[in-house]
Amino acid sequence: MLVDAKKSFQRVRENIDQVDSDLVNLIAKRLELTGEVGRLKAELDLPLYVPSRESELIKQKRQLAGEKGISPDLVEDVIRRIMRESYVNQSYTRSEVAETKAQKIVIVGGEGQLGRLFVNLFIQSGYSVTVVEKNNWIECEQALKNASLVMVAVPIRVTEQVIDKLSNLSEECILADITSIKDLPIKTMLKVHKGPVIGLHPMFGPGVEHLAKQTIVVCKGRGENKAKWLIEQMEQWGANLSFIDSNEHDHLMSIVQVLRHFSTIAYGYHLMEENIDLDKVLELSSPIYRLELIMVGRLFAQNSELYSDIIFSDTKNIPMVKRFIQRLLDLFETLENQDKETFAILFDNVSNWFGDNANKFLQESNHLLAKASDIKK
Amino acid sequence: MLVDAKKSFQRVRENIDQVDSDLVNLIAKRLELTGEVGRLKAELDLPLYVPSRESELIKQKRQLAGEKGISPDLVEDVIRRIMRESYVNQSYTRSEVAETKAQKIVIVGGEGQLGRLFVNLFIQSGYSVTVVEKNNWIECEQALKNASLVMVAVPIRVTEQVIDKLSNLSEECILADITSIKDLPIKTMLKVHKGPVIGLHPMFGPGVEHLAKQTIVVCKGRGENKAKWLIEQMEQWGANLSFIDSNEHDHLMSIVQVLRHFSTIAYGYHLMEENIDLDKVLELSSPIYRLELIMVGRLFAQNSELYSDIIFSDTKNIPMVKRFIQRLLDLFETLENQDKETFAILFDNVSNWFGDNANKFLQESNHLLAKASDIKK
Repeated sequence: MLVDAKKSFQRVRENIDQVDSDLVNLIAKRLELTGEVGRLKAELDLPLYVPSRESELIKQKRQLAGEKGISPDLVEDVIRRIMRESYVNQSYTRSEVAETKAQKIVIVGGEGQLGRLFVNLFIQSGYSVTVVEKNNWIECEQALKNASLVMVAVPIRVTEQVIDKLSNLSEECILADITSIKDLPIKTMLKVHKGPVIGLHPMFGPGVEHLAKQTIVVCKGRGENKAKWLIEQMEQWGANLSFIDSNEHDHLMSIVQVLRHFSTIAYGYHLMEENIDLDKVLELSSPIYRLELIMVGRLFAQNSELYSDIIFSDTKNIPMVKRFIQRLLDLFETLENQDKETFAILFDNVSNWFGDNANKFLQESNHLLAKASDIKK
Repeated sequence: MLVDAKKSFQRVRENIDQVDSDLVNLIAKRLELTGEVGRLKAELDLPLYVPSRESELIKQKRQLAGEKGISPDLVEDVIRRIMRESYVNQSYTRSEVAETKAQKIVIVGGEGQLGRLFVNLFIQSGYSVTVVEKNNWIECEQALKNASLVMVAVPIRVTEQVIDKLSNLSEECILADITSIKDLPIKTMLKVHKGPVIGLHPMFGPGVEHLAKQTIVVCKGRGENKAKWLIEQMEQWGANLSFIDSNEHDHLMSIVQVLRHFSTIAYGYHLMEENIDLDKVLELSSPIYRLELIMVGRLFAQNSELYSDIIFSDTKNIPMVKRFIQRLLDLFETLENQDKETFAILFDNVSNWFGDNANKFLQESNHLLAKASDIKK
């Protein structure tokens, strides 16, 4: 009986191996086909990322999963994962140049991390791109004069002074920046340049390989109809564009970005000062605590200036952070007084403020944590 | 030419649809096979989760991916995602009872979220399980006396008083708790009970469907060789057990858990008080900011007592949180004085402290963020 079970066990494992090999072949075939789609899309000048086609396809396969008695979520996760790879492949096979793409692009700071991403995207889409850095500015004067788009991709602390040097562009040229604050750069660009001005804030960090589903915030400056081709190009790359007033952008970002960075850095500082045994903590950590810890630690793999530039960029951040510390002290008071009742009232107020979103976030993060558990440590 | 391209485009899309249907069939077949493996494992009394088999299989298919010219990471992600589903399936098909599993289990608080998970796991593994709650305590006296394991799964604030009522267990019975603090419950259990005592801390939240790859912290109390079958059972469920002294556990947890919850609640409170337009923020957020925001919001989907029980559980947390606030104030001073230099020194110290981990965390989180982007908003 046990011998039989052992034999069956071995046979079933061999069958699983075969199924996995078939899976690899099928994935390879799908990528070949989507590569073909990418080439045809370029020929037909169609956007790379079409949400409606994607959701229709997913809907059908979820239904098929249900019919086969397996989890629709599983099928959706697998197909979306393969789709992600297709975007990377497609953005690299795209090569045809439409007529509207005859524009000359200059990226100032094109050797920086984010600058380089845009340089690659424009080149892959067939534009002619010139990269300007400190050391080749003079030889690029002509390229700047002929450009139809000059994109400033330098660190925040030098953005203003770099923009100040761009007073000789043609009036047809679009002047854009990709700094993570928007009000001041846009004002400076409007002052220096007479033509179209647009402020962009790519809402993602280094490590992004393609723009599909990534958000780029767009703040109007001047002459936005002349920047229409640029907007359409970013949409074709798959970016999700979000339009907002530059002032409102800066206000929201001061909390989402500045305070988040600030408190995360303080948290890392605290871990160090408390002399925490990081390896031991990691050993104890299940996916959720591991996730929280890696989101802290990842910051410290970057240069401090990346963060100080953002945190110190606006003096309005000083009273805002001060208010946050005051709220921490309010909460601390409940702990110091062992006053669970006041703690509960405060907590429930915030729960009400989050409303339905709290439950949505719980579900979404559980879904993501399950994915995190798939990763081998 | 364009008409030809359009026709090809349509044909290739149809081929993709066919490939996706084949994928669904293949996934269904794999799940059927792993279900079979689960049944055979139960028969052969083999553990559900075998890391070496898993990594060998992944290694082979990564290699095959390379030979086929596609991304090994893609293949690994897909296979791991399907594997996760297999664990869920397997843990539900397991039904055989080995001889060593004749033990009678009592779970005190078995109707709570975490208690219920253990009740289900023990039942699926063929144990006889009695659930004790406040209202049926008296009728369960006999079950408690005959139990070979009594597991206390009640909220922290009543753990001590519940343990105090467990002085009539047999000397052979293992007394265990699953509270998220360990020192005090273990001391109380040792005082009340003469037999084997073990402290467990399941390091995951509600929403976990199976134990594969989840961590359970184990703190020794007394007579651990008598609790060997329990340890082995948890390993068979796929749990990753981590052994640690109860004092050290509580120290690490005060930071990983208490401070994390505390500062996250303060952050949510700040978002509310700053009157942030949450929908607008979500609209602007790329995966990374969305992830950070949902990790805050998810807390508020739970009951405040879940957090206050942990945060208020130990008065040592008061000076620890105070030190954290002081560190925030240190960092704030650099902002107030616009002193980027001191900020950079502090930041670099923390970077050095994180060492190689910072880069590892950056890579791991980028990998995870890419997965997050797969999810449809």
